[in-house]
Amino acid sequence: MTNKAAFLRNAWYAAGWRHEIEREILFARALLGEPVVLYRQADGTPVALEDRCCHRSVPLSIGALVGDNLQCGYHGLIFDSDGNCVEVPGQTIVPPGASVRSYPVIDRHNLVWIWMGDEASADETTIPDLHWLDAPGWVAKPAYLHVKSNYRLIIENLLDTSHLTFVHKGTLGSAAIIDNPPRCERGERDISVIRWMMDIEPSPTWQRLGLFNGNIDRCQISHWMAPATVTVDATKWAAGTGGPDSDRDQALEVFNVNTITPETDTTSHYFWSQALGPRVNGDADINKKFHDQIYEAFQEDQTLLEFQQSRIDQFGRSDHEIDINVDAGILQARRILDGLIAAEGGGGEA
Amino acid sequence: MTNKAAFLRNAWYAAGWRHEIEREILFARALLGEPVVLYRQADGTPVALEDRCCHRSVPLSIGALVGDNLQCGYHGLIFDSDGNCVEVPGQTIVPPGASVRSYPVIDRHNLVWIWMGDEASADETTIPDLHWLDAPGWVAKPAYLHVKSNYRLIIENLLDTSHLTFVHKGTLGSAAIIDNPPRCERGERDISVIRWMMDIEPSPTWQRLGLFNGNIDRCQISHWMAPATVTVDATKWAAGTGGPDSDRDQALEVFNVNTITPETDTTSHYFWSQALGPRVNGDADINKKFHDQIYEAFQEDQTLLEFQQSRIDQFGRSDHEIDINVDAGILQARRILDGLIAAEGGGGEA
Amino acid sequence: MTNKAAFLRNAWYAAGWRHEIEREILFARALLGEPVVLYRQADGTPVALEDRCCHRSVPLSIGALVGDNLQCGYHGLIFDSDGNCVEVPGQTIVPPGASVRSYPVIDRHNLVWIWMGDEASADETTIPDLHWLDAPGWVAKPAYLHVKSNYRLIIENLLDTSHLTFVHKGTLGSAAIIDNPPRCERGERDISVIRWMMDIEPSPTWQRLGLFNGNIDRCQISHWMAPATVTVDATKWAAGTGGPDSDRDQALEVFNVNTITPETDTTSHYFWSQALGPRVNGDADINKKFHDQIYEAFQEDQTLLEFQQSRIDQFGRSDHEIDINVDAGILQARRILDGLIAAEGGGGEA
Repeated sequence: MTNKAAFLRNAWYAAGWRHEIEREILFARALLGEPVVLYRQADGTPVALEDRCCHRSVPLSIGALVGDNLQCGYHGLIFDSDGNCVEVPGQTIVPPGASVRSYPVIDRHNLVWIWMGDEASADETTIPDLHWLDAPGWVAKPAYLHVKSNYRLIIENLLDTSHLTFVHKGTLGSAAIIDNPPRCERGERDISVIRWMMDIEPSPTWQRLGLFNGNIDRCQISHWMAPATVTVDATKWAAGTGGPDSDRDQALEVFNVNTITPETDTTSHYFWSQALGPRVNGDADINKKFHDQIYEAFQEDQTLLEFQQSRIDQFGRSDHEIDINVDAGILQARRILDGLIAAEGGGGEA
Repeated sequence: MTNKAAFLRNAWYAAGWRHEIEREILFARALLGEPVVLYRQADGTPVALEDRCCHRSVPLSIGALVGDNLQCGYHGLIFDSDGNCVEVPGQTIVPPGASVRSYPVIDRHNLVWIWMGDEASADETTIPDLHWLDAPGWVAKPAYLHVKSNYRLIIENLLDTSHLTFVHKGTLGSAAIIDNPPRCERGERDISVIRWMMDIEPSPTWQRLGLFNGNIDRCQISHWMAPATVTVDATKWAAGTGGPDSDRDQALEVFNVNTITPETDTTSHYFWSQALGPRVNGDADINKKFHDQIYEAFQEDQTLLEFQQSRIDQFGRSDHEIDINVDAGILQARRILDGLIAAEGGGGEA
Repeated sequence: MTNKAAFLRNAWYAAGWRHEIEREILFARALLGEPVVLYRQADGTPVALEDRCCHRSVPLSIGALVGDNLQCGYHGLIFDSDGNCVEVPGQTIVPPGASVRSYPVIDRHNLVWIWMGDEASADETTIPDLHWLDAPGWVAKPAYLHVKSNYRLIIENLLDTSHLTFVHKGTLGSAAIIDNPPRCERGERDISVIRWMMDIEPSPTWQRLGLFNGNIDRCQISHWMAPATVTVDATKWAAGTGGPDSDRDQALEVFNVNTITPETDTTSHYFWSQALGPRVNGDADINKKFHDQIYEAFQEDQTLLEFQQSRIDQFGRSDHEIDINVDAGILQARRILDGLIAAEGGGGEA
């Protein structure tokens, strides 16, 4: 059974892409170790309820919508969008307390966000800013991977882009990544790992895309926001025109957007998109090539992450685990996340 | 590992349909968490032995019959039908105490019944009366489902026929079921849940069968006998001719007969038959239609029960489980069964 | 998780057949509950390392060879054949203590042997003598079975050849085996179980091979060497010419050679070969027939062993387990092995 305390609960997590939760569908997904059913009311408002009837523990997702309410498929109990039982067939009185848990949910940036902590603290201004997913002029195809690893392994993968050199040799890798060590910036609930590579050869993927004739200036700015969102600014400039203070209007802006929601301690819902800025997208063929090559790279990550998790599950972590220089940001993120979970009364990392 | 204490042991359970246990077959089945091998002696007498050699724990069911005895396939030890080792190849003396457990077994009502409690208490008059399965004039095709749920979930499903309205909308369901609340009768080791519906439309299944021109009087009398047998009297009359004191000679008598044997805590052997009375059966086509439609309904139950069990396994029961009016019989049956198991020194419901 | 204490650690085990560990392959195999990666250096020397990076626990076997060293596929850490980390990309200093475990490995008798105990005690003169596997004039085709049983069940199967009569009726069995009880000889770390059968009919396999016209003298001398090697001398003579002191130059010499390496508590790597002496082999057709028939018999054993293990896993051993006469050698081997494991501080048999 999932150790619920291992997850930060007072936070927004992606429950699904907007297109996954449709009007006529009862969408079942386990999130943070709890069974959840999602649907939309007639007016489009998303609803998230505990996917387990309070009568005999049958999943409500095998029931049916009755107007904006949800009817259990076993004995016909009807629950409203707040999770209150409003009808028990065959009797006039609903037993006091008959209810399932309901969760705040909000559509934002093409994702449906859920709050599984104390309902009173659900402040929608704390939903991570992922505006690249639906900003005018940007193209961001939604992707989903079900990864058999703990969500932290995915976060740590994204916070350390040095792995591109080894895991993604044929797509995103570049020896220049190793030669340019990153620096970190720490916020209260976020970490940035910043690497600039000036006047370097484009990676195999960018060479194949053919958007630059010669060398480029390339940044990799991983920005982790607690608990489980990481954006990677992967913008490129023609060599000599880029840099921290350069004009982004001349750049080919690309943001890799990722948010991960724990399913169990060892499985994760991984939502990601390679968001292409206005000067990158526009040509359907280029957009498809971009997506396909990044998708290939992310499958390489998935394979690696699942090997890593299964090794840990079967044999434990190394008895004498070491850290290396590029882990600086990861170690700070761990401390922040463990601190936040501990502040909730949870146990931090297992 | 199965918690053996969770099952009532001093009771008869169905080990198999009669046709499953044949002369030349070593039939292996786990019952109440124990491995059992069944076979028949030359004269047809059924035998049930522990399916694990007392020498090196190999299943005897991969051995061979030697006359009326069973020979282990590993080192050739031979066991008689009482489970005593009568020969060890290569030596003249059988080690004292060399034996496997044997269980009383009896053919009755087309089923083979096994007693897995104290042998001295095995009283065959306590085998449940399921005479509809082999009564003259009745037709009762045997059916078997291996259900991945605890046996109690199946019993509770059968004791509450209100679920027909929701689970079996297209076959056995009827709004009238909800409109006519049942009453319960409690015995020492049995419960009846009795519902009468007068002058109602036939269910979809009965409409398709076309045995009535108009409305019907319909009863649903679920009769649970501890630990795990439930019959459901589903007899129908032309409207105006039925009722508790009416003449059954005018009725279309149908008894749904069910007996469940735990395999493990979360899996069950479910033996059932829709027994058709003399005025219902007779036409092979009608009999087949009956069986097929009920079989479809029972598969709907199986799907639901397995969803229910898997939800409980994965996430536990609802923290704030409620009961509703139609649970009255179920709650009484739980108390009886828990009491019987506690009296044996077991732990009742987990 | 594997209970490491259950295995004798200061001993040589087969890690693989020589042909399994090739120059360009990173060969991953769990041995004694530990993940191991094997490869060969350019000069052919075999290397065995812990298959788990000391940085983030990723299997090194999904990395790549860099000369004679092994590079992790995640962040590019490079380990030499002693397991020491010699390079961390992106930094000049290797963190002190960065290493994975390395194991002594030796090519011998067509197998690659590994020592997983205290490295200082690794004495290659204690590798079991299995010279039949590569002796001049002998033919010994290597075979491998992944068996889902504890390694001890396999050893006990090989130490008691009386099971041939029942498990291998159609190939190696003979009633004469039962009629000729074996005697045991005990060494400090080894046991011999010796059976001679004079002037008997050949087994079905030997009848089909047609190498003898009439009756034979047959020996079965199982020789167990702690922890997990068993040879079975299965040499045959024309009746009247065999016996313990007879001239082996006239015999058809056959040695069944077996060595088993625990993978987990309930799975084993089983390496075996039917070694055919100079007067048996020579004809490719005969050699193939030999191998095929023995392979068939060993698959019968595998089926039986996996039934035995799964019965024990699911239901435990018999509550009243008995031993029989042919177990004498097995019981002595158990005592020796338990004693050796206890002397290492382990727990002996579970």
